[in-house]
Amino acid sequence: MGIEIERKFLVAGEGWRRVARGPGLPIRQGYLSAGAGPAVVRVRIAGPQGFLTIKGPGGLVRAEFEYPIPLDDAQSLLALCTAPPLAKTRHEVPHEGHLWTVDVFEAPERLAGLVLAEVELPDAKAAPPLPDWLGPEVTEDPRYTNAALAKSGPPAGAVKA
Amino acid sequence: MGIEIERKFLVAGEGWRRVARGPGLPIRQGYLSAGAGPAVVRVRIAGPQGFLTIKGPGGLVRAEFEYPIPLDDAQSLLALCTAPPLAKTRHEVPHEGHLWTVDVFEAPERLAGLVLAEVELPDAKAAPPLPDWLGPEVTEDPRYTNAALAKSGPPAGAVKA
Repeated sequence: MGIEIERKFLVAGEGWRRVARGPGLPIRQGYLSAGAGPAVVRVRIAGPQGFLTIKGPGGLVRAEFEYPIPLDDAQSLLALCTAPPLAKTRHEVPHEGHLWTVDVFEAPERLAGLVLAEVELPDAKAAPPLPDWLGPEVTEDPRYTNAALAKSGPPAGAVKA
Repeated sequence: MGIEIERKFLVAGEGWRRVARGPGLPIRQGYLSAGAGPAVVRVRIAGPQGFLTIKGPGGLVRAEFEYPIPLDDAQSLLALCTAPPLAKTRHEVPHEGHLWTVDVFEAPERLAGLVLAEVELPDAKAAPPLPDWLGPEVTEDPRYTNAALAKSGPPAGAVKA
């Protein structure tokens, strides 16, 4: 059991790539439940590891329960999901004492080119220094949860041509 | 990962109580997803242990993925479920080489008094001897999945007055 406190931003430009660590981690994920009840149930394959994650209602502070599961299970569970899996590469980008994650979306096709940055915070009042490659904040915009993106695609203007 | 092959019956009478082992196991469970996608996501507390279970579409043969989780997590997750938890007591009842489970439902109130018996089978063609306290078979009746019972209550006539 945990509480996830996280701010999320669009990304403007490629400045983050100069400080990103390594080649990034390939992630595939899908949703067993997204929007029917208050909780989202996510199946994720991150590199060689499967995860089953339950998240409470979205926003800055969010309940999160994450369990590692066998890779084989995760692959079978992706086939039970409500939509084709979402694929992205996750980059770790350090900035003034905080570790940002930058997700570059690849699939489904309508999400290709979307880039989102997130930073996890120790408490809801923490004020991390903001890198200059960030775009507008979307923490409280429900259209930018990964579950909503998987279901409905990106909001207009979120993906650069 | 697993496949669950299971037949399910209504129960006629109390004959099973003479051969039931011990006092039974108290179970509370709820659903994070039930009916929106192809999969059901169940949170269960069985005695002192929590479980998170994903089941594929219902019927005789059903994909099932079950993971033990901390009791505290299970209690928090029950609060995220789509409906108040279902409570039942599970009894183990041996009969001619097969172990039946008999579930006596207690909550929500509209399910109180419902009794269902299940037997897990090694393959879809197994033909276990049927105890004489069984009522009609409901294996393929989607109204008798626990998720449907939690959502919609018992079908007419399923609960004795």
